[in-house]
Amino acid sequence: MKSPIDFYFDFSSPYGYLAAEQIETLGMRVGREINWHPILLGAIFKVTGGQPLTSHAFKGDYSLMDFKRSAAYYGIPYNPPKTFPIATQNSCRAVLWMHQKNPAHAKTLALELYRAFFRDDRDIGKFDVIADLASTLGYDESEITAASQSDEIKAQLKTEVEAAIAKKVFGSPYFIVDGEPFWGADRLPMMEKWLTEGAWKY
Amino acid sequence: MKSPIDFYFDFSSPYGYLAAEQIETLGMRVGREINWHPILLGAIFKVTGGQPLTSHAFKGDYSLMDFKRSAAYYGIPYNPPKTFPIATQNSCRAVLWMHQKNPAHAKTLALELYRAFFRDDRDIGKFDVIADLASTLGYDESEITAASQSDEIKAQLKTEVEAAIAKKVFGSPYFIVDGEPFWGADRLPMMEKWLTEGAWKY
Repeated sequence: MKSPIDFYFDFSSPYGYLAAEQIETLGMRVGREINWHPILLGAIFKVTGGQPLTSHAFKGDYSLMDFKRSAAYYGIPYNPPKTFPIATQNSCRAVLWMHQKNPAHAKTLALELYRAFFRDDRDIGKFDVIADLASTLGYDESEITAASQSDEIKAQLKTEVEAAIAKKVFGSPYFIVDGEPFWGADRLPMMEKWLTEGAWKY
Repeated sequence: MKSPIDFYFDFSSPYGYLAAEQIETLGMRVGREINWHPILLGAIFKVTGGQPLTSHAFKGDYSLMDFKRSAAYYGIPYNPPKTFPIATQNSCRAVLWMHQKNPAHAKTLALELYRAFFRDDRDIGKFDVIADLASTLGYDESEITAASQSDEIKAQLKTEVEAAIAKKVFGSPYFIVDGEPFWGADRLPMMEKWLTEGAWKY
C-alpha cells in the first residue's frame, strides 16, 4: 500500500480551491489516497511572518487576475467572492467533526464549502451556510453547528494547525507525499511526474 | 508581425535562470521575438515591500530545495552558488551596453552570465568575470568594463528598472505579451497555451 498524499489547504485560498477540484482525480491516476487537512494560514503566518497574497503591492492585483485566469485554464468555474478573505475556522471545524463521523463525507463537505465560497459567493464562515451544505449529506443542522464548536473540535483544529507548522507547511495548497513537499496548484504536474515516473535526483 | 514577449529577470533569480534557458525556444515555437530586460529586484522590492524568497521562514528552505528540483525537472544543469544572492547591477549594465553594440550578443551574454552563476558558481557581480565572458564574444575586456560603468549606462539601468515598475513587474521571471502578464517559470506552459490556442476569457 503506497502512502497517501497529504493535502493542506485554507478555505480562503483560491489556489487551494483549484487544487481541491483536481486532487482526487490525480490521486486515482497515481494510485494514492488523499488525506485532506483544512488549516488556517492566518495562524501559520503568525509563525512564518507570511502575508496574504492579495495584500502585496502589484502581486496582489496580479493574483486576483491570476485566480480567475488559472481557473479558466483548468476549466473550473470561479466567481470571485465579494468578501475576501474571510475567517474560515468554522468551516475547518465542521470538516474535522464530520471526519469523525464519515471521512468520505468530510471530503465532500470540504469541496462543497470551497464551491460555495468560490463559485456561489456564500459566506462559508457562517454556520447557517455550513449546516445547509451538511444537511444535503444527511446531517442535522443544529447537531453539526453545536458539535463543531465543542472544546474538543476547537482543540483538534489547533492541534492540526500545529502539526502542519511542525511539517513546515507555509502556504495553500501544500502537498506532502513520501516526505516530499510540493507547494501550489501549479506544482500538481510536477508532483504527478514525481509519482508516476519515479523521484528524480536533485 | 506579432508583438514580442517582454522577459524581465534578475540575475540573482534561480527561476529567472530556468526561464532564460527555455524562453527563446518557446519564442520560436510560438513565433514571437523575445525582448530580454535585466532588472534589479532589490530596487523593485523597495517600492513593493517584497522580499527575497530565501529570506522567508519555511518558504526559504523550500525554495532552495525547489530551485534544484525544478532545474532537474526541466533538465537544466544547476549548481547552487555558494554566495547567494549577490549584487548584479554590473551584469545588468554590461548587458545593456552590449545591447547597443549587438542585441543578439546581449542575449548570449545574459544567458552565459546566468550559467556562470548558477552552473559554474562564478561571481557575476565582478567585472573580471563579466569581461571574461564578453571576451569570448569578441569584446575587449577593458572596454566593456569601462563602458558598462559610464554615467549613460548607469542612467539607462535606472530607467529600465523604473519602466519595469511602471509596468508593475514585481518578480523574476516576469513576462508581458500583448499586455498580458505571466509571473514565474511555472507559468511558461500557461503562456504558451495562451499564445498558441488563443487568449481565453476570464
